[in-house]
Amino acid sequence: MTEMIFASQNGRNIPKEDKIFGISSRAKKMAATEGKDKVVNATIGALLDDNGKLIVMSSVDRVFRSLEPDEYAQYAPIGGTPGFKEAAKKDLFRDFVPQCYVEAVSTPGGTGAIRNAISNYTSHNDKILTTDWYWAPYKTIAEEQERKLDTFEIFDHAGNFNTEGLAQKAAQILKQQDRLLIILNTPSHNPTGYGLTPKEWEDVIATIEEAGKGKKVTLLVDAAYIDFAGDEKESRSFLPMLEKACTKMPVLIAHSLSKSYTLYGMRCGALVCMTSSADIAEEFKTVCEFSSRASWSNCPKAPQVILTKIYENPKLLENVMEERKQYRDMLIRRGVVFKEEAARVGLVTLPFRSGFFMSVPCKDPEKSAALLENEGIFTVPLAKGIRIAGSSITEKDCRRLPEAIKRAIDNI
Amino acid sequence: MTEMIFASQNGRNIPKEDKIFGISSRAKKMAATEGKDKVVNATIGALLDDNGKLIVMSSVDRVFRSLEPDEYAQYAPIGGTPGFKEAAKKDLFRDFVPQCYVEAVSTPGGTGAIRNAISNYTSHNDKILTTDWYWAPYKTIAEEQERKLDTFEIFDHAGNFNTEGLAQKAAQILKQQDRLLIILNTPSHNPTGYGLTPKEWEDVIATIEEAGKGKKVTLLVDAAYIDFAGDEKESRSFLPMLEKACTKMPVLIAHSLSKSYTLYGMRCGALVCMTSSADIAEEFKTVCEFSSRASWSNCPKAPQVILTKIYENPKLLENVMEERKQYRDMLIRRGVVFKEEAARVGLVTLPFRSGFFMSVPCKDPEKSAALLENEGIFTVPLAKGIRIAGSSITEKDCRRLPEAIKRAIDNI
Repeated sequence: MTEMIFASQNGRNIPKEDKIFGISSRAKKMAATEGKDKVVNATIGALLDDNGKLIVMSSVDRVFRSLEPDEYAQYAPIGGTPGFKEAAKKDLFRDFVPQCYVEAVSTPGGTGAIRNAISNYTSHNDKILTTDWYWAPYKTIAEEQERKLDTFEIFDHAGNFNTEGLAQKAAQILKQQDRLLIILNTPSHNPTGYGLTPKEWEDVIATIEEAGKGKKVTLLVDAAYIDFAGDEKESRSFLPMLEKACTKMPVLIAHSLSKSYTLYGMRCGALVCMTSSADIAEEFKTVCEFSSRASWSNCPKAPQVILTKIYENPKLLENVMEERKQYRDMLIRRGVVFKEEAARVGLVTLPFRSGFFMSVPCKDPEKSAALLENEGIFTVPLAKGIRIAGSSITEKDCRRLPEAIKRAIDNI
Repeated sequence: MTEMIFASQNGRNIPKEDKIFGISSRAKKMAATEGKDKVVNATIGALLDDNGKLIVMSSVDRVFRSLEPDEYAQYAPIGGTPGFKEAAKKDLFRDFVPQCYVEAVSTPGGTGAIRNAISNYTSHNDKILTTDWYWAPYKTIAEEQERKLDTFEIFDHAGNFNTEGLAQKAAQILKQQDRLLIILNTPSHNPTGYGLTPKEWEDVIATIEEAGKGKKVTLLVDAAYIDFAGDEKESRSFLPMLEKACTKMPVLIAHSLSKSYTLYGMRCGALVCMTSSADIAEEFKTVCEFSSRASWSNCPKAPQVILTKIYENPKLLENVMEERKQYRDMLIRRGVVFKEEAARVGLVTLPFRSGFFMSVPCKDPEKSAALLENEGIFTVPLAKGIRIAGSSITEKDCRRLPEAIKRAIDNI
């Protein structure tokens, strides 16, 4: 932890440098000195093609190029343009029409959505609950608002979702505080690639309902990778369960355009609220707009208009879906190859189903990652293992990595 | 104040609807039903031409159109692209080369810059100090982070900047807390159009230095309208004084591309730090990047690349400057006409020098604004008067407004 000289610490654990950025810099440096073919940079949370180039969907790029000055230069309303709000809901729910109140407020990517959820559904010093394997910024976002992140073990001994662990930890926290925000990252969980099964979803919802009796419990689903979990309809099969759940608690969903529309750098997403209460829906809009006004004011207009145009034009929407499917299939092939190879060489991985990331549990993640770096393989060490971004490496690399990782881990 | 049903209040005063947005909606409605020529919408904080159309600089639009997919779709680094950081500093300082450490961290517009300044240079429940006429979001931003906004009267009885009031209030607050962030919005102060004179700047700095002895006092200059205060070099004449001041305290500057580059809806700005301490400069970068990561992650890349390209190409920069000058001259003419007319009809205004806004003090601002609305004149009622956006009305309207305002005020 960096000790402050002049700035106010405010209980935050502030690192000198963003960890992933530091690793990625070393990877780039090595590629420059020793040659690109000597380096596997498995740290990048963006979808790259087999030449290491960022994929930008040409169907989306064409819409970007059609924007008029008013469509990017003008302020969007604080909560998002009306067209975007509708398009974001359609994009999240697709064919499913939830029979509840649904509100969407625009945010700068998924990060902004999570930020606003924490700001409005937790209080100062509250604990927020998520899985022990988690996307590191959850902790950063919580600390910035002087909240704390607490975790439960994501998998039970059989490698299934640990609903019992969730129940215990939620009950324990709710003895000390009156409200609780629970963050579940699914499908294509970052960093493990796990996705809850329908049965697990059912159990999780019943568990949260039970834990939340007499308390204010909110469920936040981080669905940033929903379009990279196989068939887009199937990957949304949990949504009707949320419709049922939202009669008992507000259900929030962090929806992001970063990956699904390859619009990472345009900063667009939405926090969506499902609730059976008209008042809670209205309040959601009011408090989220207040938080937005106080953090980034309005959100970039260009990506909002892009999504609106896509959903206004069925042919264009079809093009986007087709193009995305190609890239998703490429990503899925990489994952399949990695899993096959891991099984062949006897590398134990966490139960990966889909998405940008896979994780390998190991004893000394920092040391394991360092050993791999010596071989030109750059991964991200987490608390309990290392994360590999299938999104940023080739199928060929996916074939050779498991053996190299096993060797590094076994060496410790 | 809205009472919460389910969400957490967290000490915030959350209105049902954004006030300015509500007024602007009524203006649009009236224009639709009674005709555009019956309505003067003096609420909009964006520069419109005499036909009420948003001005987007063609020189900037050409750069927007030249962007490659990588230049908008890729994530920018958390703190901004290296090119943007350099360009933002050049854009703020121009010919002046400060002899101190200068760091810039990208933010979504000026709002994000102010948000990060508050997050890192104040603590929970701290008071933040600004003038009694202030841009309303300061309070929203402070409350969202569970800080409080306190004010001192901006003008003394002679209509000059009230340095004495600043001194007294700062001393009073610093009896109760160990750090203080002071926000000064200048030049072209929103909402009065005031700008500190060099002598006033000198006094203000000496005052803050004196008040800050043994305490951690930070000065934040909100310079969102710096390019609309007459000659761009002259409007920067206070910067060398900040170089001197920053040996005693960190000086932060909120720099925005929204108005200067007509890139409102792209959300781009920077928080810039001037300090004589290498450690404080380094710490500034570290804490601001942490805050950014935790709020919006990275900032939109497109406007960062646009500013970089403009500063890489002297001919292009010249085009932008020339185009901006035309629009600034248009805005200044509107202000001159309003002032002349106000003097002629005997309307007392606050000492306006330049910028997007002018303010008229009055007894019952809400009622005055309502009376004006009956005549189709839409203004923003503040605590102590009404605000008129010269940026969004024609020169002709500037000529007719003072008489109408005087009539409304005198009627109460």
